[in-house]
Amino acid sequence: MVTRAGIVVTGTEVLTGRVSDRNGPWLAEQLRRLGVDVGHVVVVGDRLDDLRAALDFLAGTGVALVITSGGLGPTADDLTAEVVGDWQGRPLSVDPALEQRITAVVERLAARRGWRVDPDATAAGVRKQARVPDGATVLEPVGTAPGLVVPPAEGRSGPTVLVLPGPPSELQGMWDDAVAAEATARALSGRSELRQQTVRLWGTLEAQLAATLREHEDELAGLEITTCLREGELEIVTRFAPDAQPAYDRLGAVLAEEYADTLFSTGPTLDDLVAGAFADRGLTVATAESCTGGLLAARLTERPGSSAWVLGGVTAYANSAKQQLLDVPASVLAEHGAVSPEVATALAEGARARFGADIGVGITGIAGPGGGTADKPVGTVHLCVAGPDGSELRALRLPGSRSAVRERSVTRAMHLLRATLLGGPPA
Amino acid sequence: MVTRAGIVVTGTEVLTGRVSDRNGPWLAEQLRRLGVDVGHVVVVGDRLDDLRAALDFLAGTGVALVITSGGLGPTADDLTAEVVGDWQGRPLSVDPALEQRITAVVERLAARRGWRVDPDATAAGVRKQARVPDGATVLEPVGTAPGLVVPPAEGRSGPTVLVLPGPPSELQGMWDDAVAAEATARALSGRSELRQQTVRLWGTLEAQLAATLREHEDELAGLEITTCLREGELEIVTRFAPDAQPAYDRLGAVLAEEYADTLFSTGPTLDDLVAGAFADRGLTVATAESCTGGLLAARLTERPGSSAWVLGGVTAYANSAKQQLLDVPASVLAEHGAVSPEVATALAEGARARFGADIGVGITGIAGPGGGTADKPVGTVHLCVAGPDGSELRALRLPGSRSAVRERSVTRAMHLLRATLLGGPPA
Repeated sequence: MVTRAGIVVTGTEVLTGRVSDRNGPWLAEQLRRLGVDVGHVVVVGDRLDDLRAALDFLAGTGVALVITSGGLGPTADDLTAEVVGDWQGRPLSVDPALEQRITAVVERLAARRGWRVDPDATAAGVRKQARVPDGATVLEPVGTAPGLVVPPAEGRSGPTVLVLPGPPSELQGMWDDAVAAEATARALSGRSELRQQTVRLWGTLEAQLAATLREHEDELAGLEITTCLREGELEIVTRFAPDAQPAYDRLGAVLAEEYADTLFSTGPTLDDLVAGAFADRGLTVATAESCTGGLLAARLTERPGSSAWVLGGVTAYANSAKQQLLDVPASVLAEHGAVSPEVATALAEGARARFGADIGVGITGIAGPGGGTADKPVGTVHLCVAGPDGSELRALRLPGSRSAVRERSVTRAMHLLRATLLGGPPA
Repeated sequence: MVTRAGIVVTGTEVLTGRVSDRNGPWLAEQLRRLGVDVGHVVVVGDRLDDLRAALDFLAGTGVALVITSGGLGPTADDLTAEVVGDWQGRPLSVDPALEQRITAVVERLAARRGWRVDPDATAAGVRKQARVPDGATVLEPVGTAPGLVVPPAEGRSGPTVLVLPGPPSELQGMWDDAVAAEATARALSGRSELRQQTVRLWGTLEAQLAATLREHEDELAGLEITTCLREGELEIVTRFAPDAQPAYDRLGAVLAEEYADTLFSTGPTLDDLVAGAFADRGLTVATAESCTGGLLAARLTERPGSSAWVLGGVTAYANSAKQQLLDVPASVLAEHGAVSPEVATALAEGARARFGADIGVGITGIAGPGGGTADKPVGTVHLCVAGPDGSELRALRLPGSRSAVRERSVTRAMHLLRATLLGGPPA
């Protein structure tokens, strides 16, 4: 029997897309590691009835735990603690000691930034944040909002509700306390292990894989296989209970055999592989970017410890910058244009030379929406990875919006780095 | 009477956070522009029962339209068309002309990339994608998957379901057709205008604003006010029907009066303001980034047309790069360390000089998780904006993870650019 949880992400700013939700996916992954399965994440605006409807819905799916994020601030649109307390049959009252601790946090915050704070005005908001459902466990605030663990009132049934704040750093900062709380442990007491394995292919059509999976359907009972295609990478994620391990081993063998020429990972992501290759081989890298404007450098440096292999990069939008900072010859720019294989090569070589790196990556292209011509339409991108043993060039014609072309260019550059450093399916 | 819609985002890869959902927010914003209110976005994995439960839940909230994204691929975990057809009482059958068109798309896709395609194997997947519920409207594929508009079967009631593919470019590419379809128009026939206005403050505590809103509560009837605090910016978004315009005008006046010293926008985002200031004043900018690794350059160049004012930037992780590409003196690095106001200033001036830009931005700091010391803990960041009339420095101590420190540094740099270019609340 699988233990299930549901997630409610509150906030009109999330529902309307002004802020993208990072809590739902983060919570789902934490729960999976605990052996808890998530069936639904419901995003709901700051409205009483809509929030209640979401709680009713998840309770109806039989979950043992509901986790909410957001709606714990001092303004009137922050409703979550009140709604959850009421929904669990636990009336709220102010916790005076908590109220004092929140007041101290607010005053410190304002003082640090030199902002106006008017204690009479802020007191009502702070008092609201210190209201706790009867019998709930308080999770100490990381920002100003406390979290809550709210089990159903005595004599009632239904899920326990974990109430967490919206800002991801606050939510993540109180997660360990939330899991350790006795009421949470009780709600999740029946959980068992839930395994997950991933295989990644580069250069296989989804319809081709579908045929393979159909052919072997009978051998794969007990596996929940989901496939996802993005930017040319076909990701196959399988979840299963421990007793289905032999079926998974069979699937792994089938994929390894039938897709030997496109399988590039049995776990690590593209970014893991590239970072690992630099670290293991003691190589350094520098970038020279035009249309991607620093996105490749930002992606490479996202990883902790990347300063050991990333020396830096240049974003050279202007031609003068390409010449002066990366030594792209004016004659090459004049003869071939800034978007050309010749300039991609000169950028990669320039980055190598200027930063003294083992590997240089050059990207030049037309991300749009303007700047395209009949010869070089929007989406034309040239990539070059240059190293001590020569260079690899790719000429791409990418579909999509400005931001899609930029992101795809960076992903293709990462694959070209992977193939150059590690072999495997050609990028 | 407000017309409401619900959104179902399918895909285990979204539910588990391997892919972040961009469709829910995009669809919610399109619907708002059409005057349609969204109460819930439900994210659901690739499971029959969970998808059905989500449809039942949204129908129960009384929506006129449900939009699904994803689950239209050729593999067995792609269930949406089948589930929706069944749920609406409309059995599916293969549309042979559509099947031929999809086959042609798959062959073209494989040929362009030189990937293996085995027509016998892919035929089953393609046939699956060409299955259409009886009486549904087909929306022509942008990738390989067609969209569908599926009204309830004759004699049934309930919402019409718009079935759209998961890849954002495919979904967005068929949106106009989806809205223009007769069944969609019928479902949304009752809609009316829904206005939205935004005010942005920098330097106001949320609890302070809460007090103001409480004080004026009686004058603000008919307004749905939501506030969101992120990275120090307090965003106040208000939605209202046209007859509540006078109440909104009153709110606008109250905010303009009481927060004259922190209000920096009555609409445009921080990024809009900064880009507009560069464009209007004919100024150019260049960046020199250490801990943010290119993120500021990437953010500035995200905007179409930014090549007119962004000349470029250098990501200088290694000290040697700071010296050689940005002329940071070795003596300054040795005396003050790479993370210091002196180096931030030298970076900003170096970027200005090397790119010949009007404005230079320098960022240096410790994003963590390693590299902190007692004097300079993780989160220590120095910013400098240098221009023809001198420079502005900020010393920050930012909380959070590596990626939070990087993002916050970039946002603070954008605010420093805003305040330098436009005045308003000091960053």
